[in-house]
Amino acid sequence: MANFFIDVMGGDYAPDEILKGVEKYLTESNDTNSTIHLFATEEVVNKYNPLFNKYRNIKWYIAKGFIGMGDKPVQALQENHNTTIAMALRKATEVENAVVISAGNTGGVVASSVLTLGLIEGVRRPVIACSIPTKKSNTIVLDLGANIEPKISDFLIYAKLGKLYAQKIYGIQNPSVGLLNIGEEKGKGPRIIQEVHNLLQKEEENFAGNIEGNEVFEGSVNVVVCDGFVGNILLKWGEGLVELIKSKIKEKIEALLGAMPSFSSFSKYLDFLKPFDYSEYGGALLMGVNGYCIICHGRSKKETIANAIKKGSEYAQTGILSSIKELFKTLPKYKEG
Amino acid sequence: MANFFIDVMGGDYAPDEILKGVEKYLTESNDTNSTIHLFATEEVVNKYNPLFNKYRNIKWYIAKGFIGMGDKPVQALQENHNTTIAMALRKATEVENAVVISAGNTGGVVASSVLTLGLIEGVRRPVIACSIPTKKSNTIVLDLGANIEPKISDFLIYAKLGKLYAQKIYGIQNPSVGLLNIGEEKGKGPRIIQEVHNLLQKEEENFAGNIEGNEVFEGSVNVVVCDGFVGNILLKWGEGLVELIKSKIKEKIEALLGAMPSFSSFSKYLDFLKPFDYSEYGGALLMGVNGYCIICHGRSKKETIANAIKKGSEYAQTGILSSIKELFKTLPKYKEG
Repeated sequence: MANFFIDVMGGDYAPDEILKGVEKYLTESNDTNSTIHLFATEEVVNKYNPLFNKYRNIKWYIAKGFIGMGDKPVQALQENHNTTIAMALRKATEVENAVVISAGNTGGVVASSVLTLGLIEGVRRPVIACSIPTKKSNTIVLDLGANIEPKISDFLIYAKLGKLYAQKIYGIQNPSVGLLNIGEEKGKGPRIIQEVHNLLQKEEENFAGNIEGNEVFEGSVNVVVCDGFVGNILLKWGEGLVELIKSKIKEKIEALLGAMPSFSSFSKYLDFLKPFDYSEYGGALLMGVNGYCIICHGRSKKETIANAIKKGSEYAQTGILSSIKELFKTLPKYKEG
Repeated sequence: MANFFIDVMGGDYAPDEILKGVEKYLTESNDTNSTIHLFATEEVVNKYNPLFNKYRNIKWYIAKGFIGMGDKPVQALQENHNTTIAMALRKATEVENAVVISAGNTGGVVASSVLTLGLIEGVRRPVIACSIPTKKSNTIVLDLGANIEPKISDFLIYAKLGKLYAQKIYGIQNPSVGLLNIGEEKGKGPRIIQEVHNLLQKEEENFAGNIEGNEVFEGSVNVVVCDGFVGNILLKWGEGLVELIKSKIKEKIEALLGAMPSFSSFSKYLDFLKPFDYSEYGGALLMGVNGYCIICHGRSKKETIANAIKKGSEYAQTGILSSIKELFKTLPKYKEG
């Protein structure tokens, strides 16, 4: 029972895979109550509209272009107020339980979201949060690229937002927070990270100290904070690594199957790696803005989009947005450090 | 035909696994010409000396303590001039083709190396370089943690050193260099990274531009430069991810084996993942210092140490050190930017 506003033109495989993702969601879910609002260029609307006639809960909107994957976000925003993402966000502000989804230019989606949805009072910059699989369960990592040069106090806000994510989505009572760093000891890392450590130690009651890259996968903390530059590189590093390992496993299984012809299909043996496959994953939540916005990987295919819609529905149901607003009303305002 | 100087006390599993690694190398290699110099505390020397009596090419040295994994490097250096690593480095300066190996406190090894071996003229700070497996072959990534707040011009030196590594160790004629960043376009990343991009574009003839985390594993460039903070976190992130995936694969294979009892051992099916397993890997080369120093992972076990000795022998044979010295004689001196 949500309203989804989908940027049909965003992503390396748009519009085809985006629309296939919408169809996948519609055919596989029992969701007949939600409305899916699709934003595309006139040409795309005309081409695909007839194929979606069988679904009653689809609405099409014609946008005047879109932000390209290589475009400069701020420039693109200034030059065109009616891109697919800008229109989707504007329409989203008109209804309750609206979830915007885009696999387009990340900077463009972040900047448009801030402009249109606005920031929650107390948040200086938005942050991209994602849940990654660990030995224990899942850990929330943020920022994954919304803000590449955050100020010290931003990390404290990331911690608060990450904790709410862990509480609301995973039901963790009192989530612990780690600061991504190159060593466990307090004096480690660049000066700014040392200062972040001091601030978190002072202001964040459940701060577990520094956490190293490998420890994250142990699941020893529920929330990991880092700057958007490091976070974005990490996410993609992991993605490339998983893809390479997957191809090696495939080679191995194919070699094994040569010896055992009874196994005619092996793709199911790779299913257990899906949680590690970020391009099949459901997208990341943009937090700190006054609305639900899910940013999908530029390389998203139909699975990601279908999962993103499913996840968006969960986010809206948890009411995490009102919890964030409530929390920031009561928090002291930190000086921009 | 090299001289190895090994810090027996460095690492989470020292001295046991370090010495097991030495034994593994000695029993598995045909190397009867090299001398292995072992540096340990008196107690350890007395305990293990008898077990190594059968090997003729071992020399023991008694050090007055060692730098602990949690110690502050500079403080530790000032307080004790006769730690295992300090003595190993000093002794190494007395002979040709000396290779120092330590799995101890990274900061301690780096600082001691600079102090004792000295820097090659033209290099401001040393850098840790490692070769990682990619789809095509191997890519050299540096810095992995020697210098967490490098200056802009340091990246150019990393590029030059990385290229020499690719040339000398992998025989690549004209290696390409990528700058690790969050997007391909020029204006991406924090300001300092944008300036690094400009410098590399101007001064590095085979600069391939920015490279994203996932692209590294495609093997699209031969050398990737990044700061030591990002590099260290990345390396460990990959390590944690590979460990987690390995445990999932093990579970999967065990489940499969339940159905096929004829497979009595499955560990060999995981061998293909070894190149991704940094804790079994042979250690990273500290470049820019006037000598060969291999820094192994703190969690190194005997395999890593044995591999590090093998690799050290290769490094010394390539004469990469004299190539670095030659190159930096001819390079213009870049201002510290």
